[in-house]
Formats: sequence, structure tokens, C-alpha cells
Amino acid sequence: MTRAILTLNAGSSSLKFAVFACDDSPTPEAHLLSLPVLARGAVTGLGERPQLTARDGEGRVLIDTSFATGGTDGSGPLRHETFLDAILGFCQAHLAGARLDAVGHRIVHGADAFSAPTLLTPDCLRRLEALVRLAPLHQPHNLAAVRAAMAALPGARQVGCFDTAFHQTLSPLARRFGLPRRFEADGVRRYGFHGLSYSWLTQRLAELDPELAQGRVIYCHLGSGASLCAAAGGVSQDTTMGFTALDGLVMSTRCGALDPGVILYLIDQYGMDVAELTTLLYQGSGLVGLSGLSGDMRTLLADPSSAAKEAVELFTYRIAREMGALTMSLGGLDGVVFSAGIGENSPEVRARIAARCGAIGLKLDDRSGGGDRLISAPESQLKAWVIATDEERVIAAGAAAVTASTGADAAV
Amino acid sequence: MTRAILTLNAGSSSLKFAVFACDDSPTPEAHLLSLPVLARGAVTGLGERPQLTARDGEGRVLIDTSFATGGTDGSGPLRHETFLDAILGFCQAHLAGARLDAVGHRIVHGADAFSAPTLLTPDCLRRLEALVRLAPLHQPHNLAAVRAAMAALPGARQVGCFDTAFHQTLSPLARRFGLPRRFEADGVRRYGFHGLSYSWLTQRLAELDPELAQGRVIYCHLGSGASLCAAAGGVSQDTTMGFTALDGLVMSTRCGALDPGVILYLIDQYGMDVAELTTLLYQGSGLVGLSGLSGDMRTLLADPSSAAKEAVELFTYRIAREMGALTMSLGGLDGVVFSAGIGENSPEVRARIAARCGAIGLKLDDRSGGGDRLISAPESQLKAWVIATDEERVIAAGAAAVTASTGADAAV
Repeated sequence: MTRAILTLNAGSSSLKFAVFACDDSPTPEAHLLSLPVLARGAVTGLGERPQLTARDGEGRVLIDTSFATGGTDGSGPLRHETFLDAILGFCQAHLAGARLDAVGHRIVHGADAFSAPTLLTPDCLRRLEALVRLAPLHQPHNLAAVRAAMAALPGARQVGCFDTAFHQTLSPLARRFGLPRRFEADGVRRYGFHGLSYSWLTQRLAELDPELAQGRVIYCHLGSGASLCAAAGGVSQDTTMGFTALDGLVMSTRCGALDPGVILYLIDQYGMDVAELTTLLYQGSGLVGLSGLSGDMRTLLADPSSAAKEAVELFTYRIAREMGALTMSLGGLDGVVFSAGIGENSPEVRARIAARCGAIGLKLDDRSGGGDRLISAPESQLKAWVIATDEERVIAAGAAAVTASTGADAAV
Repeated sequence: MTRAILTLNAGSSSLKFAVFACDDSPTPEAHLLSLPVLARGAVTGLGERPQLTARDGEGRVLIDTSFATGGTDGSGPLRHETFLDAILGFCQAHLAGARLDAVGHRIVHGADAFSAPTLLTPDCLRRLEALVRLAPLHQPHNLAAVRAAMAALPGARQVGCFDTAFHQTLSPLARRFGLPRRFEADGVRRYGFHGLSYSWLTQRLAELDPELAQGRVIYCHLGSGASLCAAAGGVSQDTTMGFTALDGLVMSTRCGALDPGVILYLIDQYGMDVAELTTLLYQGSGLVGLSGLSGDMRTLLADPSSAAKEAVELFTYRIAREMGALTMSLGGLDGVVFSAGIGENSPEVRARIAARCGAIGLKLDDRSGGGDRLISAPESQLKAWVIATDEERVIAAGAAAVTASTGADAAV
């Protein structure tokens, strides 16, 4: 009987899922680029008017339904797990006779202990709980989804796939803050995030343009969370996010890099505590804080106000600035890859970034079009690609590999 | 009778001073590059074994004496003003018949209100006190020196010269954090520092290499405090320090840029309060924290330990990274200027920075030698200069301009 793998990806603004079929191949890692997708979908509009949509592997709509509840518990954060039952119900109906025996979970923070996909035990969950403070926007939802899936699918194995794992190769210099070394020994170091996305992008670029993939490339994951990764030969060398997913670029609702003296001042002069600072810096800053209007790039691009315009400008200015910094880390640059919600879908934003990248010789010839494609102009000193990211496929391949290597007898 | 101007510059590790003669010229601003120096010196070794040294304009030693006290009050910060009496006593003896009628003070933080040299009144001092939290390592000493000089020299006018003033030209994007706009309206924005030094360096480069000075240049002020300034035509466009002098590069005892999530974690997990964080991030981090040994670059370069080596590596890595970022802000780069204690005196550090700057085409031909000099190799894509900074001369020129323009009748 064919196995099926469910993936759950609780992002900061949505709960994405997918179901893949998985043969009992002796080398399940090889499936990464070819696992057949049975369905993929998401619950979007969390906190407002949640909607569950899903399509099959050919893009045909399988479900499109709304929920009355906003998905909050009234006062606390969004409760992505509220919608797990609906997702599971939908999935069971679309397994095409396969047996759902593994659930792969995106888990944002794995610190140093979780450097590869891992079969999740109650002990693992306890250790991952300790990292909630480092990723308050994601980790609680990630772990709640694991617990909910354990309860709903007692016969399936749960596998954690970590956003930090791809960056285990960061140079020691890129991992270090200018703090006393005892803090580094204690785990206060730069980890980097969006590793599932970068894992897909590096492997996909190796298919599309093997020569460039062997070179020095900045991968731009520009979604509601946003970061850059500088890779040489597909191996992460430096990245803009650090100890937490708060650092680096201006994001939809997150501040990005911030003078540490500002935080001391906010505590001292405004009397803010950690909970208030967490809400401000993770949820009330970035594009939504700068514009006073929205954290959605499409809304800002369409808005005539100067605040909206300036928010978009700061977003692109900070990306260009960090591209310069990462170019120094790599000792030069051969290409750029744009991905994720904004990176894939906004030629306006790509053009504004390129306009600030004259110093590194980036010129685009960015005709509208779909699919993974080269968008650099023939005379550009750098190649530029748009590649659709696929974190779900990386999660499924990780879960397939772990559940194959742990053997069928490990299945309950 | 010729006027004399005393300058006081309370840095993070020393109290520098100088005495300049000043004719009653109708355009005292023109004096910047030519004010005759009567004496210049410093109290160094604060907190350990303080020593007062001074030389005349020809470099002859005028005084070299030690103090028994360490210059602390036992528990608190260094008290630079402890030594003001000794400096004033020395200066009075070396005025060459001139009348000391103005004291120019380096004041680190002037925020937006103090954008040019300013005659200091008790009301000004109250407003500058409010900025102490933004520059805890400098501002208290700066203001204490003003008060002490007011008391000791009631007939002299006190003029504040601000490190932030040079950066009034920063682009709106370079001034902005990714925070809600109400904070910017409240003064939480990037100001930039070391402006007195950058003011000297840009004017001196305009003498030495007028064509380069008109171009896009990164000025590197690398002392125990360290920052970079990206200037176009001598006008500041972007800089690595922000709201406070804590941001940007790794420094002697300061952390530089730090993921804001780290501070939330230090509060939450270590129970640190603002006072402890201020001590940690301003005085216990950077080179001294990373090496566990010393914040002095000379000590670290001479030390065989891997911790010392790694501290120096992070210092140079972060400089190269920020050079890349500033190159993007400028849209390209024509040259680099090295200055201040490390930048002027350490060919080893300059070589290590250049080794990381292959991507921007910096190649040095850095023979040992003194004086302001070109150190780029003929084949380098960028020009590189070493220029000795002279904040004292900028302070004196500012004080001369303000006390001339306010008229003789303003003198007490």
C-alpha cells in the first residue's frame, strides 16, 4: 500500500498543508524533486475570515470553504490548530487509497540540537518548547500542530523539519555576535531561518542553472517574513536573520535590524516590558508600522499615501543594503534568486530592488510571466532568477527520509 | 590681545584637550585647517593609572605626569572632570599671552535640536541631559566637563560641538528604523556619530585629493569607538551608528549591531535589567567580551590565543560587511579613508580589512610610514588613504565661529 505524507506549515499569516504520495523507495531522499502531490492547500485569513482552500496536483480546486470563527481565542495569538481537524478531514478524503503514516512539520527554531529532520518524541517537544521565546510568532503554532496531529493521528509518525538546519554551515564569523563568549556557549548565536525554503531554492537552481548554482548566489525569500541567504555552491555562508526571526530585513510586521540602544530606550522611557516589546517588534512594526495601513505589500503598492510609499522604499533599501553586505561575505556575487510571496509575484518590488543594486551590476529584463524563469537582462553582470519556493516538498522529503530510515516497525 | 580656545573631548577611554590661538578674523570658519595650536594633550589611563601628557605645536613634550587616583569615585563611572583642574592649570601656563575666552566641548549626542556648534546655556544643558540615556558612555562626561569649565572659567564662553551634527544630511531612508512612525516623530531615529572626526576627514581629503573627495567615499573611524560614514562629495549619506553609539561595528567594549531578539532573551532568561544591559552592551562586549582579554587592538594582535584572533577577525569581518552595505547606499564606491587609533596606526588591521574587500576591488600598497598618505596599490579599483583625524581642530573652529558671531559683547 502506498504511503502518504502530510505536511503542516504554520507560518506567521497562514497554515499551509500538502499531501504527497511516497513509494517505499530505498532512497527516499531522491524523491525531493519528484514526490507526487495529491493535494496542497492552506487556511488563510487567520484572525479575520479564515478560508480553507486546496487543489490537486494538476491545480484543480478540491475545496474552498470559509469559517465563521476568526481563529483566535479572544485575547491570545491566532490558534492555527483550530483548523487542523478540518484539514485532516479533507486530507483523509483525498488520499487516493494511500495510508497516511507520517506528518512532516515545519518547525522554525531547532537551535543547534536539531540540525536535520527528526522523529518527534514527547522529549523532543519539551526541548523545542524551550525555544518558543526565540520564535514567538511561529514556534507555539508549530508545536501545537504537532500535538494536535499526535492526538488526531495516533498511527502516524511526526517528523520535525527545521528552518534553522540549512544554516548549520554558516561560517563561525556569521554565527557570532559581539558579546562575551559565555553567551555563545549558552546558545546566543546567529542561527538563520527560512532554511526549508533555501533548501528547495538551492536544489531547484541546481536543476535550472547548474553552473550558477555552483557559484555565489544571494537567495531572497521575500514573504511576510523576509530574509536573504548568501550561499556558495548551494551551501549557506551568511544570512540576514540571526538568533531570532526578528533580525535583518524590514518585514510585514517585524522591525528587522534595530539599534540595541533603541530597546534600552523603549524600556527606560516608555516603560515597556518584554511582552509589550515582543508585540511591538514582531507584530506592530515593519511595513504595517511604517505605513500605519497594512503589512500586505499589494495593498501598499496600490496606495497613494506617502507613508505607504516610504514603507515600500525602506523595504527595498534595506534589501539592497544587505545584498551589499552579503556580497562581501561571499567575496563577490554571481547571481540572485527571488522567491516567496513578494519575491515571486511582484515585478514592481523586484524592479525597485534592482534600481538600488547598480553597484553590484544587477539589471533585470523582467517580462511578466509565470513559472521559474531567468529575469536578468543579457547585459547584467549578475544572473537573476525567479523561483517559486516549495517548503512543503522539502518537509515531505525530510519526513519520508526519517520514516524510511527509522524502519516500518517504528510505526505505531 | 589674541584669543585662545580650549577644547575638551571626553571620549570613552580618555580626556583629550587642546589650546588654539585664534585671531579676530572676520571669517573664523576659514581657520579650520590653519588655527595655530599652542598645546595639545590628553589624560589617558583613566580608571587605572591616569597620566597627563601634552606637547606644543612642534611636538615638544610640555608635561608628562601621573596621578595617584584612578579617576573613579569607587563604584561609579570614570570621572573625567576630576582632571579638569590639572588641565586648566597646565593650559593657563601655556597661553603665550593669549586670553582664554572660549571652551569648545565635544558633545556626543545633540539629536535634532543641536545641529551646529551652539553657545551653551543652563537651558541647553538641561536639554542635553535628556540625551544621557542615548550615549551613557560619553554624554555624562561631556556635560560634567561643561559644568566644571563653567565654574572654573566664569569669563569664558562654553560652546558645544556635536558628533551627530555632521549627519543631518543622512537620507530619510538612512534615518529610519522599521518601527511605527510615532516613534520617529518622538526622536527614535538614526542620528549617526563621530561627526567631528568625519568633518575633519572630509575637509582634509578635499585638500589632499579634491577629485576623490567629490566622489563616493567610505570614511572609517576605527578607534575604541568605531563607525563608518558613507559620503558623497563630503556629505554624509549613511553611517553604521544609529540612535545610539552602540550600533554597527564591533568596538573595543561595545557589541555593535545585535539581533533585537537577543535583548528580549537576555531580559527574559537572564533577568537582566536596563542598567545591567547597559553595562554589558556598552562596556563588557565587543573586543573585550569576545577575547575575554582586552579591548585594546594592540594587545589582541600580539596575543597568540584563538579568542584574541577571533575577536580581531569579527572586527574586520563586520567592517567589510558594512562597507558592502554602504557601497549600496552610495550606488558605488570610489575610495576609502582609514582614521582614528586603529585606522591610522595598524597596518595589520588595514590589511585584514582589505583582504575581505576583494568584492569591491580594494588593494593596498601599505608601506609603513607616517602622515596623511595614499595607501592603495596602483591597480586598486578604489583609492585608499590614511588620514589622521583631528576632532580638536573641528571643535576649536566651531567654538571660534560661534563666539565670533555672537559678538565680543556676549563675553562676560
